[in-house]
Amino acid sequence: MTAPKRLSGVLAPAVTPFKRDLSPDRERYVRHCKWLLANGCRGLAVFGTNSEANSLSVEERMVLLETLVQEGVPADRLMPGTGCCALTDSVRLTAHATALGCAGVLMLPPFYYKGVSDEGLYRNFVEVIERVGDARLQLYLYHIPPVSQVPITLGLIERLLKNHPKTVAGVKDSSGDWANTKAMLDAFAKSGFDVFAGSEVFLLDNMKSGGKGCITATGNINPGAINEVFERWQGPNADSLQKGITATRNIMQKYPMMAALKAVIAHYGRDAEWAAVRPPLVELTPEQSRSLMAELEARGFDMPGLAAAPAVATA
Amino acid sequence: MTAPKRLSGVLAPAVTPFKRDLSPDRERYVRHCKWLLANGCRGLAVFGTNSEANSLSVEERMVLLETLVQEGVPADRLMPGTGCCALTDSVRLTAHATALGCAGVLMLPPFYYKGVSDEGLYRNFVEVIERVGDARLQLYLYHIPPVSQVPITLGLIERLLKNHPKTVAGVKDSSGDWANTKAMLDAFAKSGFDVFAGSEVFLLDNMKSGGKGCITATGNINPGAINEVFERWQGPNADSLQKGITATRNIMQKYPMMAALKAVIAHYGRDAEWAAVRPPLVELTPEQSRSLMAELEARGFDMPGLAAAPAVATA
Repeated sequence: MTAPKRLSGVLAPAVTPFKRDLSPDRERYVRHCKWLLANGCRGLAVFGTNSEANSLSVEERMVLLETLVQEGVPADRLMPGTGCCALTDSVRLTAHATALGCAGVLMLPPFYYKGVSDEGLYRNFVEVIERVGDARLQLYLYHIPPVSQVPITLGLIERLLKNHPKTVAGVKDSSGDWANTKAMLDAFAKSGFDVFAGSEVFLLDNMKSGGKGCITATGNINPGAINEVFERWQGPNADSLQKGITATRNIMQKYPMMAALKAVIAHYGRDAEWAAVRPPLVELTPEQSRSLMAELEARGFDMPGLAAAPAVATA
Repeated sequence: MTAPKRLSGVLAPAVTPFKRDLSPDRERYVRHCKWLLANGCRGLAVFGTNSEANSLSVEERMVLLETLVQEGVPADRLMPGTGCCALTDSVRLTAHATALGCAGVLMLPPFYYKGVSDEGLYRNFVEVIERVGDARLQLYLYHIPPVSQVPITLGLIERLLKNHPKTVAGVKDSSGDWANTKAMLDAFAKSGFDVFAGSEVFLLDNMKSGGKGCITATGNINPGAINEVFERWQGPNADSLQKGITATRNIMQKYPMMAALKAVIAHYGRDAEWAAVRPPLVELTPEQSRSLMAELEARGFDMPGLAAAPAVATA
């Protein structure tokens, strides 16, 4: 078996809905993922930071992934997060996702121990690659030092690419530092290493420099407009389109992101239960929610078709 | 069923040996835990930071805990680490440890998401307590901001103690900041909240201020001398004894702690395989190891009876 076709474009780290007992709500999840793919996302980086994936057990993630595929979400559009603190968990999730036919996996470094060496991180990723032992595996590195506190350095990427060029497929750079994204592009894009910006704020710059798109939290609510920038980045209106999506992003960033994304989906989908988050997160206060919706509405923001989707039976 | 007798004294976060394939080595593990209990540790905080517990899956931890109990390590001497990023994992491990009769559990806050609120952390701990629903549960909070990056504040402790006084039993303070440990002691020790210092460097100070002992990495190699300070903290030689254990600790702290602990056990136990660590950690270099052993030998350091224990068959 050979590696699947590489993803590009706008990917959303699909948010994970919870029932009142805080268990994952599979029905709402499938519906949201399908809405995203029908409204601008070319792929879904399920189980990302903004999916609250790190608040889910290995088993909970595996059930959700199987549910998506069973319900008709194409596996070759999926790039699940599979990087855990425990090597054995990362191996299990990565093997599972690859066997299901996912386009790739987005791997956090093990993130509990801080100040670890590139040698230790290299060993971690190589152990996963070798233990999974599947030529289909496309591994995307997840650089998000503000949260993980464990960076993916250029030196580490270079060593991994050199020794596993067919497997190490790219990176999501959520450093928030364009200079770092640019350095990754300059060093590795020509070797077929696919760089995704971690926010649509950098989408146009990333495309101009040889990047492949973005994997962005706000892809959960604004995929159509972000996809416009991806589709038309060489067109005459690119700067103006970029300004528009940056303005929406800037509104969202004033609020705790995951709770805000869910509040927006609850509001525009007319489905209050969507607002639930798992501890240690907390939902927006009513005041925060009102203020956020007012800001979005002032921009003419909408999520077309979301409320029109069939009503969901809740367990 | 009622809560077990509270632990006090020196507890070691027992290091976890690995075989060549990086799977946990149950035989060496049992032998090490028994050596610790026979040589000064009153309890074992298994699955702590220094146990590389965060590099183990939930299932690996459960198998190791069951192995200890089956092999005759008294459950009422055990305080396993059970705090994970995922609420469901923390519930599973905590329920398992409590059902086995463990003296308590040492719970990290969920540590992936940073900048979370005390409200979110409160909900996390309360969810665990309520879902486990076992009157035997004794919950010790694990404050280790240099690693977890998510602190346990005085306000959070106060709220948890107020609402779950029979369950919330104490704290391990690994902040490295004596002023913080003292603030915890002053605020809560009289309410029956047991404060353990996270390093023997603060053991004498902690005992003088109403603390219950220490849970310390170097308890893995120097439990006898540390226990002397605990036993004789009111005696005439307390300051001198404290100086001695601090000096040994200071040597260890020059090296990456977990790799150094395992190197010392490998050296004094004449069992080279003990040196293995799981990625993202790396073992000491030969130079580091030689330098460390020379420093320890210059202090007359020893681990009595370790090499005399029966040879271990390796799988």
